[in-house]
Amino acid sequence: MFSAKALRMMLKIEGDNSVNRITFVSVAAAFLASLLTFAPYVSGHTDEKASQNYEGKIPAGYRDWKLISVAHEAGNLNDIRAILGNDVAIKAYREEKLPFPDGAIIARLAWKYVPSEENNKVFGSEQSFVAGSPTNVQFMVKDSKRYTATGGWGFSQFTNGKPVNEAEPETCFRCHEPAKARDFIFTHYAP
Amino acid sequence: MFSAKALRMMLKIEGDNSVNRITFVSVAAAFLASLLTFAPYVSGHTDEKASQNYEGKIPAGYRDWKLISVAHEAGNLNDIRAILGNDVAIKAYREEKLPFPDGAIIARLAWKYVPSEENNKVFGSEQSFVAGSPTNVQFMVKDSKRYTATGGWGFSQFTNGKPVNEAEPETCFRCHEPAKARDFIFTHYAP
Repeated sequence: MFSAKALRMMLKIEGDNSVNRITFVSVAAAFLASLLTFAPYVSGHTDEKASQNYEGKIPAGYRDWKLISVAHEAGNLNDIRAILGNDVAIKAYREEKLPFPDGAIIARLAWKYVPSEENNKVFGSEQSFVAGSPTNVQFMVKDSKRYTATGGWGFSQFTNGKPVNEAEPETCFRCHEPAKARDFIFTHYAP
Repeated sequence: MFSAKALRMMLKIEGDNSVNRITFVSVAAAFLASLLTFAPYVSGHTDEKASQNYEGKIPAGYRDWKLISVAHEAGNLNDIRAILGNDVAIKAYREEKLPFPDGAIIARLAWKYVPSEENNKVFGSEQSFVAGSPTNVQFMVKDSKRYTATGGWGFSQFTNGKPVNEAEPETCFRCHEPAKARDFIFTHYAP
């Protein structure tokens, strides 16, 4: 789908693989087929102007954020996922406030969807599916002044801590447009 | 599977449905088919002695806890779930410390497993499944002195904020026994 090698050349990544060491992404950072709940199969070109809409850094501490909901994508994605939110996003969800305020960040974590033989033994039935190895992490960052071209949201995706850049810069946003009435967010809060 | 009416008579529930108002459960509190990742189909009797091993209160603030992992149970359960941990549990998971220290609490939230027509439209494929209405919440509370008969863990389950009591009191524990090497916890931490 994309050339990791070319990507690395485009990106300025310092030091080791640590998330904190990825300090700056110069051109087109991390936005691929990176829809919050979606990762459609797209191809396209790099639009430098629009790509500046996207962040290249993983938001600090996202793995500690509170849960919004969970989902399973079958088909080619074949993953199981959790959607987390920072405090600003969670507060907006719980208070049902739309649009989301600036500062809200929503994270979509995904892992391979794998059967659990251990669990199935206990259940006595082939019914249990769990999270395997991580696939990628996607973010939507709300900044209504910065991301004017994409509904006020910046989109990014990371695999193994590295930003992933692919396809048309507004691809993420276009797929989110059907959820315009909910500020372009598909995921509902799971009580 | 159980008589909600009989259960309510056994339980002392004050006031409204609010979680905080459920203050005390006298005899057999909340432990049903309430395995952390499991809810097998059991039948049995109430064992008063063993049932005292179980808590009847929902741990405060559990919906804000950090994510351990996610799972899908097909079959009769047909749910999608998230496993959360309080800070003690999360710390033990991340440091890979076993057994879990006293004070660790693990929560298993589950929701109906429902297809998302909205998501499928965007994907152009019948592939998306999300969390529907909540089914129940289960807890494992580590207290090695209190829950000596069940591996140091107390088990409980709540539906609509009310404790659910069913079947043999050690049912939960027996199903968790195959995971003895991991302190009776099946769920692995999802990075």
